Formats: sequence, structure tokens, C-alpha cells
Amino acid sequence: MDPLDRLDATIRARRGADPASSYTASLFAKGRGKIAQKVGEEATETVIAALAEPHTLASEAADLVFHLLVLLADAGLGLDDVRAELVRREGVSGHDEKAARSPQGTR
Amino acid sequence: MDPLDRLDATIRARRGADPASSYTASLFAKGRGKIAQKVGEEATETVIAALAEPHTLASEAADLVFHLLVLLADAGLGLDDVRAELVRREGVSGHDEKAARSPQGTR
Amino acid sequence: MDPLDRLDATIRARRGADPASSYTASLFAKGRGKIAQKVGEEATETVIAALAEPHTLASEAADLVFHLLVLLADAGLGLDDVRAELVRREGVSGHDEKAARSPQGTR
Amino acid sequence: MDPLDRLDATIRARRGADPASSYTASLFAKGRGKIAQKVGEEATETVIAALAEPHTLASEAADLVFHLLVLLADAGLGLDDVRAELVRREGVSGHDEKAARSPQGTR
Repeated sequence: MDPLDRLDATIRARRGADPASSYTASLFAKGRGKIAQKVGEEATETVIAALAEPHTLASEAADLVFHLLVLLADAGLGLDDVRAELVRREGVSGHDEKAARSPQGTR
Repeated sequence: MDPLDRLDATIRARRGADPASSYTASLFAKGRGKIAQKVGEEATETVIAALAEPHTLASEAADLVFHLLVLLADAGLGLDDVRAELVRREGVSGHDEKAARSPQGTR
Repeated sequence: MDPLDRLDATIRARRGADPASSYTASLFAKGRGKIAQKVGEEATETVIAALAEPHTLASEAADLVFHLLVLLADAGLGLDDVRAELVRREGVSGHDEKAARSPQGTR
Repeated sequence: MDPLDRLDATIRARRGADPASSYTASLFAKGRGKIAQKVGEEATETVIAALAEPHTLASEAADLVFHLLVLLADAGLGLDDVRAELVRREGVSGHDEKAARSPQGTR
């Protein structure tokens, strides 16, 4: 099983669990504002890692992905919804390279 | 093929391409600072979507993942490096639920 | 007059003005979500400037302050509310150096 | 004295002080990457406050300003450099309302 999907499934299974049982459950208990804040913080750490400490970039990216999946799960979404969005953009563009969004032109 | 891996492969193939050929190639040409800036911007848009416009969350998350993959590619990394980091954390913890990082305790 | 207060007053006078009349008026017309997004973007640019292009830091900080003042104005607040908060913290702490917030201890 | 300038002066006086003596001194000791990270985090909290908890906006804005001043101080800059930049833009534009930067048109 893809580790990303394993993480996604683990996270989604933590919704509604005892906040004391895991970090993920405690995040859900704190609510969407707090989860969103963590996504912003991990994004900042990823930006800084990319510029100043590239050897930590994969680790920071994993943190960002983790918290992004928690945010999606809190809204009833999961990694497959991101995949579906990516596939939809491929479909719109006709081939991988065309961007789906007008302001950015050809992706 | 996983759409995430297809996107990752497409992005990595754009490194060094003519900046005029695609949005991705133009990002690489602008350099890591600009790519990092886009990651920060998309994270902010994801945060706002989660709080104020949840119906756009999957789309904003896809934008964030796309730019995160560009940032990783610019550093010679890819989605498999994120997967490897996630697997490493599973290994450290013994089971999915234990956190790899001390400050956060049990994940 | 302090240039910060002059900017604050100019911004507040733009609320409700024709969106075509100025960049500030157009931001107010786009709503709080868009203004908040700009604050996040300018913060990211400030972070990047500090790490990678310090000679642009004062300029990026000015951009951040500008958009922060627009966000405050959209909520009916201004620079004096930030000043009042700073004074309140001095009062709570007894002297400048004590932090008002427990998680951070002595400021 | 303007509370903003009092804060700016206090912060600048903490550079090089014993990290154990204050929160500000400990931030300087941790270095620019950590300070920049705090600016990004406080910006995220400000964005969330504006959208979801407006009654905390002035407090979050004060946190953001505080950490921005620490970041500026770490680079040898202060609030007067931000003021100078704002004045410079007024000068460039001829009057307050014209933007200094072309992509954004009239400010």
C-alpha cells in the first residue's frame, strides 16, 4: 500500500477519537482553525528549509503533507480528492502540460 | 499510474526546459526563491479555503501539492522522498500511531 | 505626521471607495478573504527576503505592513489598536521585558 | 514616545543579550531562520483571526508586528527603515494614492 494512502487512512480513522490517544486526534479536537494554522506553519518551515536547510526539506515536506491531510480529513476529504482534481485538470487541458487555470497559462 | 506520480514525473521532466514552454518550466527558471514563494502563497490560499470556502479546498490543496512538488524537484527530490520519510517515521515509531518527533508526543 | 499613521489614515479613507480608483479600494472590494491572502503572501515574501535577499527586506516589510493595515481597516481597526495592545502588554508585565503570554515566558 | 518605537528600541537592545534573559534575546540566539519562521507563523495566525476570530485580530497583529521588528533588527534594520520606505513611495508617486509598483497599478 502507498505510504501516502496508509497515512491518509490512519488520519481519517482518528477523527472523533479520544484527543489524548494521539497527536492527530488532538488536532481534530482543537478544530479546523488550529489545523489550518499548522498547515501554514509547516508551509513556512518548508519554505525556510528549501532556502536555508535543504537537507531537511524532505522531512519538512512530509510534515506539510501530514498536516494537509489532517485539514482535508477535517473537511471530509482525502488524498483521492486531490488525485481527482489533478486528473480533472489533465482532462481539461487535453494533455499533462496545459494548465487548467487561465491566469497562469500553459502549465 | 498514480496521478500524483504522473504529476511528479511531468514536473521533473520540465527542469531545464525552455521557460516559455510551460508554467512549470518558467517556475524553475525563476529560481528556488520564487518557487518557495508560490508554496507559501498556495498554503495561505489553502488555509483560507478551509476556513471560508471549503468547496474550493480540494482544488487549493492540489495547487499546494503541485507547487510543493516543484520545490522538491528544484532540490533534486521527488514524491518518493516524502514517502520514504513517512515510512521511516512508521519504522521509528513501531506502529503508525507513535510520533517520530519528541516535541509532539504520540502522533 | 508619522508616515505609518498617514498610511493608516489613507487606507481607512479608501473603504467603500470606487474599486477602480485605487489598489487599496480594489482590495476592500474583493473582501476580507482576498486581503488576508495578500497578508499571507507578503509575509512569505518577507521571510524569503530575510533569508535570501536581505537588501529587499525593508521594502517587503513595508508591503507587509501596508496589507496588514488594510486587513485591520477591513475589520474596523487601525494602527492605534495595535499600539493599545502593545501598551496593554507593557501594563500587564509591569515592565517592557516581561511577556504577557504564558507559553512564551519572559519576553 | 510611540509604543511602536518603544517596542522597536527594546527589541534592538536585546541583540546579543543572554538568551536566558528574555524571549526576544532567545529568538536572536536561535538565528534568522527561526525568527523568520515565527513571522510566517504569526502571519498565518493573523489570517485565521481575521477570518474566524476577528475579536483576536488586534492581538495577533501585535504579535506579527513584534516578530517583524525582531526580524528587521536581526538584519540591522528598524521601524524607521519601514517608515523611510513608505515615504519614498509617497515621493515616487507624487501623492499618497499612486502605487510605487507597476504590477499593482494605482495604490
